[in-house]
Amino acid sequence: MKISEKSKLCQLSPMRKFHSLAVNAKKSGVKVYHLNIGQPDLPTPEVFFQTVQAFRDKTLEYAPSPGIPELIDAIREYYKKLGVNYDADDIYITTGGSEALLYTCLSILDPGDEVIVPEPFYPNYSTFINSAGGVIRALPTTPKEGYRYAHRERIEKLINQNTRAIMITNPGNPTGVVLTAEEMRLIADIAKEHDLYIICDEVYREFCYDDSGKIPCMGRFADVAENLIIIDSVSKRFSSCGARIGCAITKNKELQNALMKFCQSRLSVATLDQLGAAALYGVDESYIRASIREYRHRRDICVAGLRSIPGVMVEEPMGAFYLMAKLPVDDTDKFQNWLLTDFEDNGQTVMFAPGAPFYATVGSGITEVRIAYVLEEKELKRALELLKIGIARYRKEVMGE
Amino acid sequence: MKISEKSKLCQLSPMRKFHSLAVNAKKSGVKVYHLNIGQPDLPTPEVFFQTVQAFRDKTLEYAPSPGIPELIDAIREYYKKLGVNYDADDIYITTGGSEALLYTCLSILDPGDEVIVPEPFYPNYSTFINSAGGVIRALPTTPKEGYRYAHRERIEKLINQNTRAIMITNPGNPTGVVLTAEEMRLIADIAKEHDLYIICDEVYREFCYDDSGKIPCMGRFADVAENLIIIDSVSKRFSSCGARIGCAITKNKELQNALMKFCQSRLSVATLDQLGAAALYGVDESYIRASIREYRHRRDICVAGLRSIPGVMVEEPMGAFYLMAKLPVDDTDKFQNWLLTDFEDNGQTVMFAPGAPFYATVGSGITEVRIAYVLEEKELKRALELLKIGIARYRKEVMGE
Repeated sequence: MKISEKSKLCQLSPMRKFHSLAVNAKKSGVKVYHLNIGQPDLPTPEVFFQTVQAFRDKTLEYAPSPGIPELIDAIREYYKKLGVNYDADDIYITTGGSEALLYTCLSILDPGDEVIVPEPFYPNYSTFINSAGGVIRALPTTPKEGYRYAHRERIEKLINQNTRAIMITNPGNPTGVVLTAEEMRLIADIAKEHDLYIICDEVYREFCYDDSGKIPCMGRFADVAENLIIIDSVSKRFSSCGARIGCAITKNKELQNALMKFCQSRLSVATLDQLGAAALYGVDESYIRASIREYRHRRDICVAGLRSIPGVMVEEPMGAFYLMAKLPVDDTDKFQNWLLTDFEDNGQTVMFAPGAPFYATVGSGITEVRIAYVLEEKELKRALELLKIGIARYRKEVMGE
Repeated sequence: MKISEKSKLCQLSPMRKFHSLAVNAKKSGVKVYHLNIGQPDLPTPEVFFQTVQAFRDKTLEYAPSPGIPELIDAIREYYKKLGVNYDADDIYITTGGSEALLYTCLSILDPGDEVIVPEPFYPNYSTFINSAGGVIRALPTTPKEGYRYAHRERIEKLINQNTRAIMITNPGNPTGVVLTAEEMRLIADIAKEHDLYIICDEVYREFCYDDSGKIPCMGRFADVAENLIIIDSVSKRFSSCGARIGCAITKNKELQNALMKFCQSRLSVATLDQLGAAALYGVDESYIRASIREYRHRRDICVAGLRSIPGVMVEEPMGAFYLMAKLPVDDTDKFQNWLLTDFEDNGQTVMFAPGAPFYATVGSGITEVRIAYVLEEKELKRALELLKIGIARYRKEVMGE
């Protein structure tokens, strides 16, 4: 009996692979600070819970496969404010942005098809692409260039007859890179000229820290409507990760037809969560503004804290709530393991995501980590202090320095 | 820009493809009786809603990727009562049984791999298998033999070097066939002898109408623990389709590792629904017994109603809440379309699922339908009456008889 080749190509999530070690650490009384996962601690707007609690049907029925009309309408209104008009048929509600990404890959990729992805990238992209039989063509970036990836020649060099799509996160996870309007236009131009899909994951859309007030939205480029699939979600915008409500948006009719097949095959997305999510889109904009202020503050703390650790290299991220940092250790995967099994300081330890799985290029990222600055100030400061103490002790005890 | 070959192989769900026509009919004031989809009208146990309403965390967080411990423990307790012991690591909570089926296919199938599936089968199996690049090898059955499929020679004739699994629904959707203990043993033996997985979808487990009180559970055969993946769900057992909570269960460690990768890639299953589902497993058994009684009553009404329509052929199903019936029309897909666009009787019409997509064998099932007897007596009777009137009128107006 065999396991599929595609599943062998997939990896455990670097954000979640240490889950059982963390459970063990917690069982033995150690407090674990989680910088490993994009799980914000900001409160979910109460209207989500109020809406769920107000449900009075006797039977919890399947929802329509592409999503409930209330939620689709709410998303249309949200995009209208961004200057983009979507029809109800353009929007496919999914179980988180994750399902939207998987169904998009299944809809456009066959074995051997290639997707250009700037690296470092969100590692689950690799699983979604592998699931469909596709292959990542990594577009390397460097910390020196602030991880910026919108270079025409470098991208065009990667395009061949098997290339089907460019997949980006904007604002970026894990790098925090936010594309300029010119860079977005360049990606759109390249996709259009080479007949490629743009899979544009904009789940962190509002989280930009450059004071311009501009909100990135690839959907504004009407001339690439046929090429574009927007991935969106309520998880980050409304601090509602556990609702698992996202969507895929496209005006490409053939792609819509394919997405609908996968949506129908799994019948529907959770009914109560869709109702709650529809209500989230009515939350006052001050909620988002306060979230942005809070994350920017945390970013500043995080960057300052990291820069105070000897040997750590970090660039200031401009969006989302992640950053990549280079640590002065031999292997961040090994270091994370050690932090959970052999380290504690005053009964506490810390988790991050080791860097290698964020790269397709073998050998890259081994001394890097992704940090999610999703804890409040005091917790974040202590987490960074634990990292500092941990690094010093690891270098002494394990690396023998 | 291309759409994937695998998505072209997939079809719209025959249960859901007429959704937009039904919406239009409803908009024009026509009442539609739904026999097309396994959406029970029985009340969801109140404890589900009470549990969801009692949630007091400020932030709706991701759950652990393989599921929340409370739900996994509840499922272990449920299986213990059936005489099967599962470890927590054996159970992977999924977004409905659908996600469990998709992840199972992705975990074991590569392009060209074959899965033996008795036909007629649940059409979404085809999408899940296609998504992984696999192919269905149909095991044909006949209404004359009551759609029974557990024949050693017929199954072994289909096994070749590409065969990876046998996929069954027991009790059966769409046929209502329930395997005898001997038949279950035979399937297990064949899988073991030929090193095949058994993907055993038991979401209708309790819905058996033969008075034996036996509840089918392939998990009781400990000698095929390495071969077996059980698919389960709260949707039917607890009339909670809209919760989208299912699971994949296996003791095969390699398969567990593969399933975990896919579970981690999509982060988690909806948190509130998992909490509600955990509570469902504590519902008194009288709830299930009452459901079984009600469905048996509806089955009797449905079979009697269908047999009163001239030219309809139907076998009495022994489990689940579906049946296949042969209608005296030229094409049930065309007939369904007509029922929604050109027919009404006193402002009412009826929906079923056309039969062809339940078959992989081209040309089969064109005059058959799947009927879900999920409406209460009065509604069900009227729905069958509408079918009777519809058939007569269609034969006259469209078929020109």
